[in-house]
Order: sequence, then C-alpha cells, then structure tokens
Amino acid sequence: MSLKPPAVDPAVLPELRASSYPEPFRSRMGDRMKKLLADASGLTQFGVNLVTLGPGAQSALRHWHTHEDEFVYMLEGEVALITDAGEQTLRAGQCAGYPAGSGDAHHFINRSNRPARYLEIGSRRDDDLAHYPDDDLMWANQRTRKPDNYQKKTTVASHKDGRPY
Amino acid sequence: MSLKPPAVDPAVLPELRASSYPEPFRSRMGDRMKKLLADASGLTQFGVNLVTLGPGAQSALRHWHTHEDEFVYMLEGEVALITDAGEQTLRAGQCAGYPAGSGDAHHFINRSNRPARYLEIGSRRDDDLAHYPDDDLMWANQRTRKPDNYQKKTTVASHKDGRPY
Repeated sequence: MSLKPPAVDPAVLPELRASSYPEPFRSRMGDRMKKLLADASGLTQFGVNLVTLGPGAQSALRHWHTHEDEFVYMLEGEVALITDAGEQTLRAGQCAGYPAGSGDAHHFINRSNRPARYLEIGSRRDDDLAHYPDDDLMWANQRTRKPDNYQKKTTVASHKDGRPY
Repeated sequence: MSLKPPAVDPAVLPELRASSYPEPFRSRMGDRMKKLLADASGLTQFGVNLVTLGPGAQSALRHWHTHEDEFVYMLEGEVALITDAGEQTLRAGQCAGYPAGSGDAHHFINRSNRPARYLEIGSRRDDDLAHYPDDDLMWANQRTRKPDNYQKKTTVASHKDGRPY
C-alpha cells in the first residue's frame, strides 16, 4: 500500500549523489547517497537526510557550522566519527550532536566493508557558514547585481586565500 | 567501549515517562517512554527524541503546531498515523513530516501487540502553540509578576472556554 501525505516512503524518493564541493574534494566523498526526507514532506526549518555510505565513503569534509545545530543517528552498519578529540566508532542505535558554533569539526568515514546508513538532521539558517580546518576550502559570499537591481547573495567555493575554485 | 562527546549512546540516557498533559489526557498516552537525544548533545535549535510506544500507547493527543516543523522516522514495529485524511500504517523505515501551521493534526497510536520505536524531531520556537481539534484542551498564556517585577510568561493547560485544568 502506498503512503499518503503527510507520510513519506523513502523507498520512492530519488537517490542523490551530488556534492557542492569542488574537486579535489568532491571525489573524496566516494559512494555517498542521500534521500531528502524532510524536503519531501515540505519542511523548511530543518533538513532530515537518509544517507548511505559505501565502504570508504565519507559524510562530508570535516567541518563545523557557525549557526546551525546538526545531529546524526546511526541506522545500520558502523562509521568512524572523527572530531578534534580523535576517532571513535559509532554503531546502529548510537548518535552524535554538533551544537552550532562549537568549533569542533566532525565527519564520518566508513572504514568497514559494508554499507553504513544514518539520518543527518540540521537546522536551516540563512546566516550559516561551514568551516573546514583540515582542507583548503572556504565559502565566500558573492553579491550578484541582477538586471532589476536586486542583489542576490550566493556563496562560492574558494581557497582560504580567497581565490575561487 | 563508552562513547565520548560529541557522540551519545542512548543506552545510558534516562527513560522519561512524564507528560505535561492534565488528566484525563495524561493516562491516555499509556506506556510511552522517551529519551532526549539532542538535549543530551547540548543542541537547542531542535529536539530529537527516541520514543518507544508499548501496545495501546499514543505519541500525543492529535495536534498541530503553529510555528514548529515536526518529523517522525519509524525505527521498529508499526503504528497507526492518524491525520485529517484518516488512518494509515507506518512501518520501520517510513516517515512523516508535519509543516508548521498546516492545520492538519496528527498523532500515532500503537495498535499492534509489540513495541514500536521511532525518532521524533521538532524545531524549538518560543512563539509556538499546539492545537488539539479532538480534545477539550488548549494552552493559555499566563504572565506571572515576580518580586523583581520581571514578568515570566508560562503556558497553563486550559479547557477551550479558558477555565484552567
């Protein structure tokens, strides 16, 4: 039986494999697939993504958010959680939370030989930026003046010295 | 091996069985247990609760939120999801999202003979109120003047005609 709104069956949602990172960072994510569950329900205040990491894949570059709380809950398999304190293994049923502005960068690497699945939850804030302590990447604001004189603010991937990728 | 922050092992968190509903509503929740995962990580922008409903238990009175998005992800067992459109069964791996202000009230009832487990996720907004279309319950604002002249705003459980419970 198919579900009716407000229910959502993740089985019918598209498998997204895109990354907004420039190379050489994008390839480093490996076999990473996401389904956008909260977007599928019309939510705007936070995102909930169902993420599957194949062996060797990563959740993201190690990063922390200036204004967004983030939370992960392991559903299947195991991952290495890497933070400033080092590395530990997270297994199905365990979780982690990253308060906005903590300055403690985090990411997952699947060092096992089977898929790992988890939910990633993050609030949505216009004023948020991510910082990457281990990699030469930052997001720079760029204002584009449109024909109607409306200034659209976008972020572009840059080296830490400001040169765009 | 025990986990270090920012990781959290739900196994070591307290089992909460409290309800802020007055009677006769509180008892109707039945065998409902929550662990507050995001609070345990120091997050403030949204809550993530691991909820276990025994047979016959309910997630909440059927309600909708004025300003908070809410989302649920089923981990184990099955529940009946009741909304204005009627009833449908949600099973492990399925989910539902409730946009703020939708006016479509929702809750879960465990009509099965085994426990059901799910994650409930909700943003935290000071201006939020919940509405209960099926029950004679509303939350009324009450300002209490403290000795230092600070007015503390609290909400009290009331009948829909304004009489407090």
